[in-house]
Amino acid sequence: MNVLKNYINGSWQGSASKETVDVVNPANQEVMAKVPYGTDTKIDVSQAVSAAQSAYFEWRNVPVMKRVQVLYKLKSLLEDNKETLAKIITDESGKTKGESFGEIQRAIENVEVACGTPMLMAGDVIEDIATGIDEMMVRQPLGVVGCITPFNFPSMIVFWFLPYAIATGNAFIVKPSEKVPMTMMKIFEFLDQLDVPKGLISLVHGGKDSVDALLEHPQIKAISFVGSTPVARYIYSKGTANGKRVQAQGGAKNPVIVLPDADIEMSSTIIADSVYGCAGQRCLAASTIITVNDEKREIKDALFETVKSRTTGYGWQEDVNMGPVITPESKSRIEGLIQKGINEGAKVLLDGRNTKVSGYEKGNFIAPTILENVALDKELIQTEIFGPVMSLISMKDIDEALAFVNSGNYGNMACLFTSSGASARKFRNEADAGNIGINIGVAAPMAQFPFSGWKDSFFGDLHGQGKHAIEFFTQTKVIIERWPNIWSRKF
Amino acid sequence: MNVLKNYINGSWQGSASKETVDVVNPANQEVMAKVPYGTDTKIDVSQAVSAAQSAYFEWRNVPVMKRVQVLYKLKSLLEDNKETLAKIITDESGKTKGESFGEIQRAIENVEVACGTPMLMAGDVIEDIATGIDEMMVRQPLGVVGCITPFNFPSMIVFWFLPYAIATGNAFIVKPSEKVPMTMMKIFEFLDQLDVPKGLISLVHGGKDSVDALLEHPQIKAISFVGSTPVARYIYSKGTANGKRVQAQGGAKNPVIVLPDADIEMSSTIIADSVYGCAGQRCLAASTIITVNDEKREIKDALFETVKSRTTGYGWQEDVNMGPVITPESKSRIEGLIQKGINEGAKVLLDGRNTKVSGYEKGNFIAPTILENVALDKELIQTEIFGPVMSLISMKDIDEALAFVNSGNYGNMACLFTSSGASARKFRNEADAGNIGINIGVAAPMAQFPFSGWKDSFFGDLHGQGKHAIEFFTQTKVIIERWPNIWSRKF
Amino acid sequence: MNVLKNYINGSWQGSASKETVDVVNPANQEVMAKVPYGTDTKIDVSQAVSAAQSAYFEWRNVPVMKRVQVLYKLKSLLEDNKETLAKIITDESGKTKGESFGEIQRAIENVEVACGTPMLMAGDVIEDIATGIDEMMVRQPLGVVGCITPFNFPSMIVFWFLPYAIATGNAFIVKPSEKVPMTMMKIFEFLDQLDVPKGLISLVHGGKDSVDALLEHPQIKAISFVGSTPVARYIYSKGTANGKRVQAQGGAKNPVIVLPDADIEMSSTIIADSVYGCAGQRCLAASTIITVNDEKREIKDALFETVKSRTTGYGWQEDVNMGPVITPESKSRIEGLIQKGINEGAKVLLDGRNTKVSGYEKGNFIAPTILENVALDKELIQTEIFGPVMSLISMKDIDEALAFVNSGNYGNMACLFTSSGASARKFRNEADAGNIGINIGVAAPMAQFPFSGWKDSFFGDLHGQGKHAIEFFTQTKVIIERWPNIWSRKF
Amino acid sequence: MNVLKNYINGSWQGSASKETVDVVNPANQEVMAKVPYGTDTKIDVSQAVSAAQSAYFEWRNVPVMKRVQVLYKLKSLLEDNKETLAKIITDESGKTKGESFGEIQRAIENVEVACGTPMLMAGDVIEDIATGIDEMMVRQPLGVVGCITPFNFPSMIVFWFLPYAIATGNAFIVKPSEKVPMTMMKIFEFLDQLDVPKGLISLVHGGKDSVDALLEHPQIKAISFVGSTPVARYIYSKGTANGKRVQAQGGAKNPVIVLPDADIEMSSTIIADSVYGCAGQRCLAASTIITVNDEKREIKDALFETVKSRTTGYGWQEDVNMGPVITPESKSRIEGLIQKGINEGAKVLLDGRNTKVSGYEKGNFIAPTILENVALDKELIQTEIFGPVMSLISMKDIDEALAFVNSGNYGNMACLFTSSGASARKFRNEADAGNIGINIGVAAPMAQFPFSGWKDSFFGDLHGQGKHAIEFFTQTKVIIERWPNIWSRKF
Repeated sequence: MNVLKNYINGSWQGSASKETVDVVNPANQEVMAKVPYGTDTKIDVSQAVSAAQSAYFEWRNVPVMKRVQVLYKLKSLLEDNKETLAKIITDESGKTKGESFGEIQRAIENVEVACGTPMLMAGDVIEDIATGIDEMMVRQPLGVVGCITPFNFPSMIVFWFLPYAIATGNAFIVKPSEKVPMTMMKIFEFLDQLDVPKGLISLVHGGKDSVDALLEHPQIKAISFVGSTPVARYIYSKGTANGKRVQAQGGAKNPVIVLPDADIEMSSTIIADSVYGCAGQRCLAASTIITVNDEKREIKDALFETVKSRTTGYGWQEDVNMGPVITPESKSRIEGLIQKGINEGAKVLLDGRNTKVSGYEKGNFIAPTILENVALDKELIQTEIFGPVMSLISMKDIDEALAFVNSGNYGNMACLFTSSGASARKFRNEADAGNIGINIGVAAPMAQFPFSGWKDSFFGDLHGQGKHAIEFFTQTKVIIERWPNIWSRKF
Repeated sequence: MNVLKNYINGSWQGSASKETVDVVNPANQEVMAKVPYGTDTKIDVSQAVSAAQSAYFEWRNVPVMKRVQVLYKLKSLLEDNKETLAKIITDESGKTKGESFGEIQRAIENVEVACGTPMLMAGDVIEDIATGIDEMMVRQPLGVVGCITPFNFPSMIVFWFLPYAIATGNAFIVKPSEKVPMTMMKIFEFLDQLDVPKGLISLVHGGKDSVDALLEHPQIKAISFVGSTPVARYIYSKGTANGKRVQAQGGAKNPVIVLPDADIEMSSTIIADSVYGCAGQRCLAASTIITVNDEKREIKDALFETVKSRTTGYGWQEDVNMGPVITPESKSRIEGLIQKGINEGAKVLLDGRNTKVSGYEKGNFIAPTILENVALDKELIQTEIFGPVMSLISMKDIDEALAFVNSGNYGNMACLFTSSGASARKFRNEADAGNIGINIGVAAPMAQFPFSGWKDSFFGDLHGQGKHAIEFFTQTKVIIERWPNIWSRKF
Repeated sequence: MNVLKNYINGSWQGSASKETVDVVNPANQEVMAKVPYGTDTKIDVSQAVSAAQSAYFEWRNVPVMKRVQVLYKLKSLLEDNKETLAKIITDESGKTKGESFGEIQRAIENVEVACGTPMLMAGDVIEDIATGIDEMMVRQPLGVVGCITPFNFPSMIVFWFLPYAIATGNAFIVKPSEKVPMTMMKIFEFLDQLDVPKGLISLVHGGKDSVDALLEHPQIKAISFVGSTPVARYIYSKGTANGKRVQAQGGAKNPVIVLPDADIEMSSTIIADSVYGCAGQRCLAASTIITVNDEKREIKDALFETVKSRTTGYGWQEDVNMGPVITPESKSRIEGLIQKGINEGAKVLLDGRNTKVSGYEKGNFIAPTILENVALDKELIQTEIFGPVMSLISMKDIDEALAFVNSGNYGNMACLFTSSGASARKFRNEADAGNIGINIGVAAPMAQFPFSGWKDSFFGDLHGQGKHAIEFFTQTKVIIERWPNIWSRKF
Repeated sequence: MNVLKNYINGSWQGSASKETVDVVNPANQEVMAKVPYGTDTKIDVSQAVSAAQSAYFEWRNVPVMKRVQVLYKLKSLLEDNKETLAKIITDESGKTKGESFGEIQRAIENVEVACGTPMLMAGDVIEDIATGIDEMMVRQPLGVVGCITPFNFPSMIVFWFLPYAIATGNAFIVKPSEKVPMTMMKIFEFLDQLDVPKGLISLVHGGKDSVDALLEHPQIKAISFVGSTPVARYIYSKGTANGKRVQAQGGAKNPVIVLPDADIEMSSTIIADSVYGCAGQRCLAASTIITVNDEKREIKDALFETVKSRTTGYGWQEDVNMGPVITPESKSRIEGLIQKGINEGAKVLLDGRNTKVSGYEKGNFIAPTILENVALDKELIQTEIFGPVMSLISMKDIDEALAFVNSGNYGNMACLFTSSGASARKFRNEADAGNIGINIGVAAPMAQFPFSGWKDSFFGDLHGQGKHAIEFFTQTKVIIERWPNIWSRKF
């Protein structure tokens, strides 16, 4: 069985750790590979940092216009290998083919934005702050930076950070989720083709041990993380205690309000796509759907009709709308939450448990589930489900709905469906969430914008993507120069 | 004896704590006031936060163009009361009159820059990210933010943060140094005249207890700190562990290189001003002076000549060049460091210990001190002295000098004196410090620029002043709107 | 009778021309003053330029942070003298008191934005565009610039330009409308109190001769103009033929669409304010009101009801809603247009001709006028009326209405009243006008934004106000520096 | 003989004009092709505009992120075809191989910067300018724009404009110099492969007639021009008289100061490269070399030594340093200027006239020429030579030299060679030119920066390249929206 290698100092090498865990296809439980794990992966991290530090000293002196040339090439490589990459994503994460292609597209868009780094990292200059004295600010790289990515977007997340980090002159080490490391292996086959110093970009496998190694290493200056809120808190707290910059994105619980003046057909389709896309395993998945004044059940019925025909199965098959969840444990946790909701009084409109997919009997499948009248103070509404479950609740007007939205702990996304300009404005102005959708189900910022989680969905101040990423991966240097006019005749 | 009041919910009120510490004039040990202290100051913080939270909900809805109007007024108040404010600064911190006026000017400049907040906090918008879909990013305030300021700039530091925080819509609580609280009292007399909601800006006195209360309070979203490195680490670590944004500026050890082609007269004056200004008690004080190829002792002699005539005394007297250090403990710590340096082989060019100032016999005075040939690996060179001590060391060329500069733990400032464009460029490009001076002794960024400490001189990513402050005190909100063209005819 | 003086070289001085024209109060035909006119005003321009050129050489070397200090003072002066200034505006231009105060407020807002010039004019810097080579761009002033302002905003227009021009380091000469020069005289009483070099800001009176003198003078580097389209074309063409930068804003014909889903009460009030404010004499006055599907005449009736109660009279009287038009000629031109419209088939809902105001029998009053079913291809719809006339036309849907809007020659403003987010989006995306109002009647950009006329409403590329003004009044200078590392050891 | 076709409406088609002029290889007078010319080319322009207008309406609605995808492809096409393109450039313009490759690289860099258009054209948004009112500014394209390019950079100049124009949504028509149209033909072979609407990018051949047609056509909204100053004036004046935006870059006369503290070896090589590169036919060619205090003739001798060994010949040959000038007329004009200089007292250090290149006897060759002691008020110093002639003059100090520099009519470039930071600062601050080189001979701004000609070297306000190009090719649209909160509950 294939034990995955690390990519350190510009080459593929075996881990110092002999311990491994399995990489499993969630659609059929097949073991695809084994990934290094355990205490000794710390040695790998240490080696990667050492090589990265050397590479950094070389790379930081390469002009930024030259540094970004590798990103143009990376864009081409990703575009030319979409299908190959998408297949791996589907096989290790369970996504449908369309979802896999979709996340690669988002990855590419970040590479494109980072191609503009020469202008994005430009500094400011003011002549004559006092007579004969000029002042300027330039941005310089930090050194070696680390990134820890989650299982649910095996290819996209690393690109919220990597292109900006290297374009600004840093060295970059990524530890992918041990559940989906093979996508990152393929990405590193592309990175390996770039003309950068050996060691500049490294891949180290592992779990909590390698994470801790990254958080503790004094030469790592910054940590970028995306995952669950408890781990995000841990990363933020520990990384900063070690003096680093940290940007840590956590979980979410994304509410959606549907006003009576919404376009019902479009809204129900978009909302279903948001709830069940990636089997509900994304931080921008809609979860709680708040209908307002839907006494005739127009929106509820439309949602039900849209959802009931969705097919579940192995994601690479063309006619499949939704794949499995990531692990049997995850499946059983989600099914438990559904049962608990029912026990607490929720009404089941659609029950996705006990789904069997022919040919994929061992897969972690849960079909689309809809619960109605879920208790507001209970777990289904209060916690992140990360599965294909829609909770329907009813409110009497936009004020009540908005108050509910703002009462949550998370602030990753909030969406509104309406035809009213005034309701849209009120919502985007007042909703306590960093990514707002108006008639949009997955309000994922384009790469030009920061991916703006709020509250427990984000710890730090500078987000991934765009100008925030540039600022995060650079430190400002202010220079004040005095060159008295009289001196020009003196020396 | 006057026990200082807090300013909470728009009015002056006594602390919940009965414990106090003395506010002492360092020039004569007179007790000027008593300042609340101890565990019960936590109650004050709690009350301040509660009032601030209410004020915030009102203030955030005031248009930004209106919010900044109070800053124009604040600028006038500060300008009209410079002398009054300066006298208090001198009396509680020991600064000279000129130094006190100087820091007020820096404060005003930050108020000016924050007047431009309407434009500085503007967001980005892109039409048609996909057909019929627009995306925009706006910046919204965080809520209640806290600020902890040091003794060495009683008036200036709070203005690196306050004007930006309130201009962007936040409520602001400051805990000044218990050694210099009276300057902040006076500033709050001005703030009290501004047309803002009650409770928006609060002053709470105290020591470590009130600091901890600020760090732990869940409604405080961000902490701005300036002080020593150990405390900055503590603040950064504890504030982030509580989920907050933190920007924590620490200490410094600022090296200055003098190349043989420098203008000797100008350089020696500027360097002396930097080393002895504020009695060496500023985070941008030059400390270690590295002469290069100064075999004829031209620069050393010039420094000696410049320094020896500097007078020490009560700062408000017109002919005094330097005031006392902040406390007797500080005086004795600095004198101990000098002695230690001598014991370890340093040569004393000028010994400022045992200075007596007539009429101010109890003052914490140390006159300008110059040590030569100080051992590079010993405490005088490795730690922050925060006193009027210049350590002279010699290097053979700019490469050796720069390597030494970059070997330090701190990165607040590094300066070069030269007439060479090439040396200046090499230095500003390569020196590992965030504030660089070329023929400048105190490279304090103008308010338009971030005050950019590096390494152990700063923990966080967004600094005080200018655009960084705007970014720190706001959170980005991304809005994606879909309004299909077809809908315009539908409803 | 008072012959107005010029303000040249820092002092008030009589014109070289003996010719004058009268300044007349449009509410009662009283002659308030005489203003220099005719060929010999060219001599005044020449003297002003000469003094300005000297002042410029001094002023450009004053640090920008210092230059903006005069703007803080100017803001105070304007705020402290609003009433005095407003009275003059009303007396020479006919505006109501509220309108006069309103335009002063807009003037002040531009002064505020220009206070932020130190940051707004900052340049860009990129280190290491090639190894050892840095590149930066700074903005430097142009020299002497000229400004020609119209009668309809005696105080506001000059502030779209002046604060930015002087903050960026230029010298500034303004020629106000000969119809309303006294407001500018008062403004120069304030400007006279600013601490700037003598001659930096000048006031020259006159008509076409002084305009031509400004356009032809080789030392004037840029011209800012606001007025009618034919004159704007002349200014643009002649100024550029003399090699200058020119920004020339012309007239307008602003359409407003009211959709059936608009809030009728609010819309009708706002629209009436737009049509009749300043007696229709503003470039953002709504003129053609397009009702869509208003078969029940809900919006037409509401407009009629709102408008009919509006009072006309001397503007300084508290209960007056609308003042006179600027001249008897203007009155007769507007009345002729109304008659022509009627002759061509328009139906008169409200006829404001032959209005008499008691005590002001000689005033140029026209009361609010509403015409319905005006022919689309005739003068009332096709040309700028610049008077208190509303033309009502009907369309069947937003597409037809928008096509009509985009068929016009002007592009200053277009407004939509609706409750629909989709209609708003379609309109703001597709309407061919530079200033768009959604449920707004006078879409005047705040000072932070460019005043964006399009098509025949503007000639040039950089508008007044904000960042555009900064760019217009500065020229970019790119500096490329090579300082090879090796050199740092060489000299 | 090949008569060149136009590229209109997405295909190659013959000109309506039967008149032609020859395209001649300046190294051997071979006629390479015939290019349409004369009055009837106006018909071609008219057809191109008509197709462009249609293409524009389609293209402007393509999301900007999609629009820039064609630029990524264009970058690849240019990179993959450098050699082919360079050969054509050399053959029709006379450049050396290295020079041809060099200008293609500059072209590619502009394509790269324009790839960042999604972020560069983003607008500003401010929430709540008043309660419930938001304001934003977006940039929208102009429509059809025209570009007229010179002979001396057959490939580069069009890329200062084209990538930005189409990325921002405009349609683009270029008329290349009739002397070097074949390079543009090749470029259009690449453009033809891009996925854009038919007619979006057009090529029309011709001379003054097609230029006039572009300047007069009402559907052309903006003109970009690079050429000589008299023609730039004509273009600026006529284009603006037709109501268009115009940016017109003219000629230059670039002075270089060499201070005594300059690095002689490096300086002389760089200066020679600047004077003789492209046979002196570039707008950033150094022309007048001002030595300061060079009594020992160190710099003069070094220049002489460097220059004398330069070889002249057919540019595609590897060992050739300099090619021919563009036409026999040009050669004879330059030789006449040299003779005139000699007649007026200049001393010839190196005479490049009467140079014969074996195998290329008919070529328009002039070898490197150096004249000394040229009279300051005569033609050689006062006018643009546009040929391989260096005029050496002497000054006593930097003040005199700078005064001379600033006395010129042109302001394209000024350079200083020095090791002094103070002299560099004085020069970059005070020199009246828009592109400044410090120890740089050809201060061509990188594509991120505006190509900043001043004085008679540029007419307009927004330059080519970078953010200026984005601003030039877009018009700002300000949108003010009122959506009262109360309305959210109303409809």
